[in-house]
Amino acid sequence: MSPRQPRILICGSALAGNLVWAHEEARQFFDGLADLVVMDSPNRADFLVGLKSGGKYDQIVGIYRHNTSADRIGVFDEEIIDALAETGTVKWIAHNGAGYDQIDVSRCANKGISVSNTPGAVDDATATTALYLVISCLRNYAWAEQSLRQGTFKSGLDPGRAHDVTGRTLGILGLGGIGLRLAHLVHAFPMRVVYYSRNKSANAPEWCEYIDSLEGLCRESDVLSLHVPLRDETVHLVGEKEIRVMKKGSIIVNTARGKVIDEEAMIRALEDGHLSSVGLDVYPNEPLVNPRLLEFPQNVLLPHMGTENQDSQRHMEVRALTNLRDFLRDGQGNDLIPELRSKL
Amino acid sequence: MSPRQPRILICGSALAGNLVWAHEEARQFFDGLADLVVMDSPNRADFLVGLKSGGKYDQIVGIYRHNTSADRIGVFDEEIIDALAETGTVKWIAHNGAGYDQIDVSRCANKGISVSNTPGAVDDATATTALYLVISCLRNYAWAEQSLRQGTFKSGLDPGRAHDVTGRTLGILGLGGIGLRLAHLVHAFPMRVVYYSRNKSANAPEWCEYIDSLEGLCRESDVLSLHVPLRDETVHLVGEKEIRVMKKGSIIVNTARGKVIDEEAMIRALEDGHLSSVGLDVYPNEPLVNPRLLEFPQNVLLPHMGTENQDSQRHMEVRALTNLRDFLRDGQGNDLIPELRSKL
Repeated sequence: MSPRQPRILICGSALAGNLVWAHEEARQFFDGLADLVVMDSPNRADFLVGLKSGGKYDQIVGIYRHNTSADRIGVFDEEIIDALAETGTVKWIAHNGAGYDQIDVSRCANKGISVSNTPGAVDDATATTALYLVISCLRNYAWAEQSLRQGTFKSGLDPGRAHDVTGRTLGILGLGGIGLRLAHLVHAFPMRVVYYSRNKSANAPEWCEYIDSLEGLCRESDVLSLHVPLRDETVHLVGEKEIRVMKKGSIIVNTARGKVIDEEAMIRALEDGHLSSVGLDVYPNEPLVNPRLLEFPQNVLLPHMGTENQDSQRHMEVRALTNLRDFLRDGQGNDLIPELRSKL
Repeated sequence: MSPRQPRILICGSALAGNLVWAHEEARQFFDGLADLVVMDSPNRADFLVGLKSGGKYDQIVGIYRHNTSADRIGVFDEEIIDALAETGTVKWIAHNGAGYDQIDVSRCANKGISVSNTPGAVDDATATTALYLVISCLRNYAWAEQSLRQGTFKSGLDPGRAHDVTGRTLGILGLGGIGLRLAHLVHAFPMRVVYYSRNKSANAPEWCEYIDSLEGLCRESDVLSLHVPLRDETVHLVGEKEIRVMKKGSIIVNTARGKVIDEEAMIRALEDGHLSSVGLDVYPNEPLVNPRLLEFPQNVLLPHMGTENQDSQRHMEVRALTNLRDFLRDGQGNDLIPELRSKL
């Protein structure tokens, strides 16, 4: 290991302490460009000390970031971004994931630090999670599994509450990569697919029907599935008004971010039966889950599993590390996030 | 209601005490052909008395049968078939369901009673159940849901145990209507699809690869999904030998019948990690579930939900009742089961 080589900091990973990708392979991937250093700080204070000149993270030029690092050092807020900027060497944060709401990107813009994410690599796994939630909600399978494991087989379950997937209408809010992938998966049944995005998508197949308002989408959907990023303008995008224009007995599926839904309005609608169930992979304050959601056996509640498997984690990791390598070699990674494209 | 009209006995239904199809519609469906009588016996003794001359089920010519009737009067075994034959009037049993292992069909053949099932009508719902089990097993979602509801979010779960659906190999044992429907649903990802049936299927699409032995199928499959009826020759069709030629870490999904698998061999393979999980909708002695299956949080255990929803139940009910109507009008229903086609 040459001390002259730039260093890349591996900040969290899907597997405890290790990249999914074998470290040796990853080292070869950066051969002649950079050395890899694994972030081993147990807490934020230790991390911030390590970044200082002469510290264990000295001479870091780029950071690979996985959300699991937040368990030890917290999210990449102003304090962390400022500390990274003060090193004078860190210029790129390659985030592993589609959603980068754990990074203060406007602070990064101010400080001249680039941020990339991993679009595309998450589409298949996340859309599969959404498909799973759609099936389970329509067919009451989460409830059925609880009933079996509690020893009551299916007594108490009522087929009159359940529906086939085939023939139902799926409303997709946000037809990006994940939403489009979900459209293709449910088309196999088929479900009728309608969608709303700020703009009509050029990639939408002809059987995918554009609805020109969120309210219109809510009105048409038996199941509404959310696929928008968390931004200031998407907080509580689906609230009381949107939920109440949905049909009685309809379903909401969320694999995007918890704060996109007004959780209180959603729970009220579950309580009075306006929504028959919700299928959630994300929550406003993870890992906390509002205990009132657990009172409904028909709710399907996953602990943010969207991309949690070795195949997708490897794809995402390779894509994140490729952004860092391209930055080291060419000064620019492909997946620079949209907010920073004009600013940096 | 004319006392001269033949009578049809409604024996069990998906919804407590009621057809999914509104009774009024069902009555009109049989208008001028038969009256409908709902079986209200609390037990077998009452049922057998009702069938006797002058009893409440006197003059029944055909029976609509749903498995739920077994809760009160038991399966249609020799005793019940003989009692039906002794009426001298019952000539057709229209079973609601694809599998008719709850009816002693060889006794029916001996006694000149026809039996129909509802092929086709169950394919979509059952294949959707199998798809659900495939996704949940590969992605560890049942385990994840238990973890969340126990308050531990996803701690203890390991993405290194989970896989994407896309790219895995699904082995389909029995490419009838349900198996073929499942093939189409997973092709959307795509999974690689291989199958074994006694004969190569003329309906199989070209991407569906025929394997000419069960052992070969087991060897190729990451996930093996069972779609064969329960017959003497399919009991324990998947046993120790078949399971052990599967790859280490593979998965078995069963939406057919519990007895098609040697449960003890399957549990041994879960215990020593040869199978990573199983996804089951059916069990050898329903509603009893072997408690050892519950010891594995990664197992996905549904309480026989294959077709349990109002849409499929209605399709199946209409198809079963159509067999009875065709029998009344033309002397023959379309879905006479294969075993009886040559015999009656």
